[in-house]
Amino acid sequence: MKIDGRQYRTIWLDQDNQSVNIIDQTVLPHRFNILNLKTLDDACRAIRDMKVRGAPLIGATAAYGMALATQDSVSDHALTEASNRLLKTRPTAINLKWALQKVTTALLAAPEHERKAIAYRLAQDICDDDVATNVTIAETGFLEISNLWASIKDKRDRINILTHCNAGWLATVDWGTALAPIFKAFDHGIPVHVFVDETRPRNQGANLTAWELKSHGIPHTLIVDNAGGHLMQKGLIDLCIVGADRVTCDASVCNKIGTYLKALAAKDNHVPFYVAFPSSTIDWETATGSMIPIEDRGSREVTHIQGQAQDGNIQEILIAPEGVETCNPGFDVTPPHLVTAFFTERGRITPTPSELKNAFSA
Amino acid sequence: MKIDGRQYRTIWLDQDNQSVNIIDQTVLPHRFNILNLKTLDDACRAIRDMKVRGAPLIGATAAYGMALATQDSVSDHALTEASNRLLKTRPTAINLKWALQKVTTALLAAPEHERKAIAYRLAQDICDDDVATNVTIAETGFLEISNLWASIKDKRDRINILTHCNAGWLATVDWGTALAPIFKAFDHGIPVHVFVDETRPRNQGANLTAWELKSHGIPHTLIVDNAGGHLMQKGLIDLCIVGADRVTCDASVCNKIGTYLKALAAKDNHVPFYVAFPSSTIDWETATGSMIPIEDRGSREVTHIQGQAQDGNIQEILIAPEGVETCNPGFDVTPPHLVTAFFTERGRITPTPSELKNAFSA
Repeated sequence: MKIDGRQYRTIWLDQDNQSVNIIDQTVLPHRFNILNLKTLDDACRAIRDMKVRGAPLIGATAAYGMALATQDSVSDHALTEASNRLLKTRPTAINLKWALQKVTTALLAAPEHERKAIAYRLAQDICDDDVATNVTIAETGFLEISNLWASIKDKRDRINILTHCNAGWLATVDWGTALAPIFKAFDHGIPVHVFVDETRPRNQGANLTAWELKSHGIPHTLIVDNAGGHLMQKGLIDLCIVGADRVTCDASVCNKIGTYLKALAAKDNHVPFYVAFPSSTIDWETATGSMIPIEDRGSREVTHIQGQAQDGNIQEILIAPEGVETCNPGFDVTPPHLVTAFFTERGRITPTPSELKNAFSA
Repeated sequence: MKIDGRQYRTIWLDQDNQSVNIIDQTVLPHRFNILNLKTLDDACRAIRDMKVRGAPLIGATAAYGMALATQDSVSDHALTEASNRLLKTRPTAINLKWALQKVTTALLAAPEHERKAIAYRLAQDICDDDVATNVTIAETGFLEISNLWASIKDKRDRINILTHCNAGWLATVDWGTALAPIFKAFDHGIPVHVFVDETRPRNQGANLTAWELKSHGIPHTLIVDNAGGHLMQKGLIDLCIVGADRVTCDASVCNKIGTYLKALAAKDNHVPFYVAFPSSTIDWETATGSMIPIEDRGSREVTHIQGQAQDGNIQEILIAPEGVETCNPGFDVTPPHLVTAFFTERGRITPTPSELKNAFSA
């Protein structure tokens, strides 16, 4: 999407045809910095430190991480080790595992002298496929928004959408998942207005989603995570759209911590609740949502927060009693009965195990 | 309660027998500062800027505000004006209205030369009554915690309680409401452990509740507001206790924004959800929760946050895109069917309109 009128993706091959560029998502919205990744180490660090985040972008970065690894060695041993290291950077994101399996399997099956070229081509393919997928998700969700708008537009001047965390283009290679239908609806003249959950503890809503929407010119309002239920009670939310980090066989949705609370409130207030994701997010090997391991992301995200000080510097401050014990689960699981529909590259899917399986079995 | 071994209340008459001392709750947990209020203006500012907060303490401060006003003038006109000014400082807190009505009515009925003495005596009475009330709330809630603990103690090493915002002794004159039963249970040797919602946007959980529990030596874990639903799904919460800013005739609970979301999650996971409050919190003039005016507390609470910088200074930083639009409702309304019971000075009450009325009609 566009920043200051210039088209960007979130990850791209440098002009040197070896290193890879990313947007540093840890200093947005205060700074727009591009980072150059030269080595496997750089890629691991970028994922672990959340310079890149969002399930699809993590997958794409891991694929490019494998390509960077081939600069050092293309041996079976080195590539297997590289894949294992990348896999450990974020335990919950299923796309990471998916991308690494795809690339590593192909590389190990190829002759060593072809591996470098194959790695770069596969990474590029994964990026291009992600964009194509998200364009389809945009179309699927756009239809739903469009229908909803048609049903209320006689009595209303805008359609209010709540989203949690960031499942915008910054979470993918381009377009995004949850925000893709919103971008498309806006571009087609539907008066969308987005309530953005700030999304503690990392504030990806405040830092990234609000910044994306502003860059694109879409009207939006930032709220604390506590406010969404009240807004639904007051009839101020017409629909919710969120992304997913992992969807299990039973159609459970693992997404950013707090998603479950919004889904409960949506159900209680008869507000449609949609989840947008590409099929690479589906974990066919895990039967139920409760089986997903949830990473605890440590104390510092809870006790400290980063922002811009009055002198313009980016600073981290302590916002809790020194040394307080914390518990910081990164994700929660929303059961399928709280979800109205999935938006995927195979269209709109009713969130049941059988519909999910049917949609992606062919 | 105690701080560094010394007994404090949150508000007390100074040794000069005229001015009033409060603990500045806007710089906790980083600083422990006592502020001296000398005038009506000081009292209005203390309430409006949330130097004092919590429905019962707001009421007590307003009462002392009236006493401070008598230093300037005891005329009907001056006292009525003082009462009106104090009433406007926080539109949602019902105790404010209750305390002001009580004091103002008594003052206007008394001869002018007695008004100053009456004002100070009434303010002191309101404080003492609050403490007595909270001791009874503590006993009511303690019984419930005690019974719950008896039912699980064979298989567990602690009882996990979730609380939202701060309804501890800092929210009252002493003891608190939601935390009062927890203090008492701890003092009686029940191994309580408290999950503390940080409670955005003002972080009263992180700043005040965690600090109170630490000061008293009660084990606790700080979590972001998004995490509570997940913890309940995982069976890590045995009960929730929150306070209330206003309870309406239909037994709806108006409390800090985000309470409703936790109540929904508690219901969904069969976790008992209790609300602790004194009868002064009940608004007998408002029929239903949806009729309560909810204050929007402005942008800055959402876009900025205060904490301690690395150099030890307290600093405010920007945590959102500059100039972003916000919506910041201070409270939400939890319908009674999500609440297991009320803890009040008249004991445990089932949250129905008739039980509420019966309990307080005699």
